[in-house]
Amino acid sequence: MTDDIRWHASSVSRELRASLHRNQGAAVWLTGLSASGKSTLARALERRLVERGVFAYVLDGDNLRHGLNSDLGFSPEDRTENIRRVGEVSALFVDAGAIVISAFISPYRADRARVRGLLAPNEFLEVHVAAPLEVCEDRDPKGLYAKARSGKLLQFTGISAPYEAPEAADLVLPTHELTPEQATSQLEELLVKRGLLS
Amino acid sequence: MTDDIRWHASSVSRELRASLHRNQGAAVWLTGLSASGKSTLARALERRLVERGVFAYVLDGDNLRHGLNSDLGFSPEDRTENIRRVGEVSALFVDAGAIVISAFISPYRADRARVRGLLAPNEFLEVHVAAPLEVCEDRDPKGLYAKARSGKLLQFTGISAPYEAPEAADLVLPTHELTPEQATSQLEELLVKRGLLS
Repeated sequence: MTDDIRWHASSVSRELRASLHRNQGAAVWLTGLSASGKSTLARALERRLVERGVFAYVLDGDNLRHGLNSDLGFSPEDRTENIRRVGEVSALFVDAGAIVISAFISPYRADRARVRGLLAPNEFLEVHVAAPLEVCEDRDPKGLYAKARSGKLLQFTGISAPYEAPEAADLVLPTHELTPEQATSQLEELLVKRGLLS
Repeated sequence: MTDDIRWHASSVSRELRASLHRNQGAAVWLTGLSASGKSTLARALERRLVERGVFAYVLDGDNLRHGLNSDLGFSPEDRTENIRRVGEVSALFVDAGAIVISAFISPYRADRARVRGLLAPNEFLEVHVAAPLEVCEDRDPKGLYAKARSGKLLQFTGISAPYEAPEAADLVLPTHELTPEQATSQLEELLVKRGLLS
């Protein structure tokens, strides 16, 4: 069937959208361990951007797994498919002219690189939310690290499954050394610096 | 793992978004046969809304199948999964405050009902793009009906696969009797009438 699928180019150019909005479409991709602060940061940035009149939206690992990805588990294959779908949805939001903030552990470098490949070079910002494992395990707001240590939870990133840290992140946020406000401001400044937000 | 997934409520309320935008979040769902005019209408409505300053975006069967749903075929199961995913993505756009225009053959009533179930009653507008089969087959811009008649294309909606027309559509657009401008205006008027657009 593939040959019979035709691409309907959007009748609304990115230039028109950008001229009507106060921002370019872009994906802010927050990667890091569980409890590193990804969701908190994502929500704080979303609020700041929406209050500026920017069309911003958070895609969140926990939320997406209730809906689009409710059929997926936590095996390496399912994690890869999870991130593939989130990447595709992020690309749709970027095409729509939004600043989409995607907060996912996304432990595999190759999966993140694939998402980057869906977007133009300036449209994808990889942000490492880089609290050390000890800090995250100490926070453990959902008790997941404890369950993982006791073997009740398998394939848990950082304990029994790998986390491959970014090698060339657009921004590294050591959230154990920053207030949420400071970290949010750094994200906002990065968007301005890259010309994605005015 | 399901018990360990927590919903991060959006820190941006729908009221705040709606106060900043000129519209409520809503899904305009265009269903109908291949070549009935769904994509043309979707693009025309998108352009009108964006020019009004509304955050609008088209999800399109053909386009989505290049990305998010590139792993799916046209069997009944894959069509259902295709529409399930598009419904979930539509719901994310609605949650983001967009008017999302989804143009999909979506031949099964149950699949469309499931999408409706993801949204609040006033957020989902089911629109039957209702050109008769003879008209669509006569248009046949991609030559798909010809292929389906000759047996080169299997499971083709209207020929060798069923199309279940809506029983209580929010709007029926007989595109063989309307200009694209008239049909687009009817969609725009429906959005205003339902209080989704001011």
